[in-house]
Amino acid sequence: MDKSRLHKFKPGFSWSEVEKERYKESDSCWCGIDRNTLIGNRDEGVKFHLRYFEIAPGGNSSLEKHTHEHVVICVRGRGRAVVDDRLHDLENLDVLYVSPDTPHQLINPYSEPFGFMCIVDAERDRPRPLEAEDVARLDASEATKGKYIGYIEGD
Amino acid sequence: MDKSRLHKFKPGFSWSEVEKERYKESDSCWCGIDRNTLIGNRDEGVKFHLRYFEIAPGGNSSLEKHTHEHVVICVRGRGRAVVDDRLHDLENLDVLYVSPDTPHQLINPYSEPFGFMCIVDAERDRPRPLEAEDVARLDASEATKGKYIGYIEGD
Repeated sequence: MDKSRLHKFKPGFSWSEVEKERYKESDSCWCGIDRNTLIGNRDEGVKFHLRYFEIAPGGNSSLEKHTHEHVVICVRGRGRAVVDDRLHDLENLDVLYVSPDTPHQLINPYSEPFGFMCIVDAERDRPRPLEAEDVARLDASEATKGKYIGYIEGD
Repeated sequence: MDKSRLHKFKPGFSWSEVEKERYKESDSCWCGIDRNTLIGNRDEGVKFHLRYFEIAPGGNSSLEKHTHEHVVICVRGRGRAVVDDRLHDLENLDVLYVSPDTPHQLINPYSEPFGFMCIVDAERDRPRPLEAEDVARLDASEATKGKYIGYIEGD
């Protein structure tokens, strides 16, 4: 049976028949993030999920790592990504690949929303907080020292 | 080991460290298509591939079907998609899901390049040509009759 569908892009960065979710509202490590699940929650057979995340000005994702990989495509505004001990600027249509177990965080230090598509395997592990040695590596790097947000020792 | 990487988007719709390939050059069913493999050919562990395809003005993809699903995100210009007996206009950031074994074709009838991200499972079956009953369905639909390109009976 044909279950194909089109999600039309709408002004304000939303899509037809896709509901915006406030992401991890109760978790203070995620600040000002909306999620739109475009592919993956409607009985598709694909082995991946496609989500659109938007980080409000001043917001950020958790500083975390996991064994599953991330693919990020910037589609709105711009932002920054801490990826292990490197800091990347992300602008329109830049594509970021985050390899397994690599500490990472997405940050919007700008005054406009920062939106990106994020593709992940459908089956994936849960994010973990960083370990002290990860944080030591970030602190030892000129690029990332003082640029990540929200790590609390023992958190 | 951290194998993360950033592909910077460059003017003219290319990405750093991604080579443009002429797609199926010898196959007359694919006309004027370039492919850029962004994720999937560098020993990643992900269960999906991310490619950027660009169809030149007047070009089109094969009219085909396969059991693997397609996810298409329009990022340059605009185009059309035949999806079974429906015809969709695709514009910037529209997201199209093509379900298993659904006949489909992407077409650029416009004067500007039509570019889209296409996400597929890493493990997937090969495309097959349509069967006569598929074509009969396209011909019975006001939306798609005369709008698809290149079907030759017995091809």
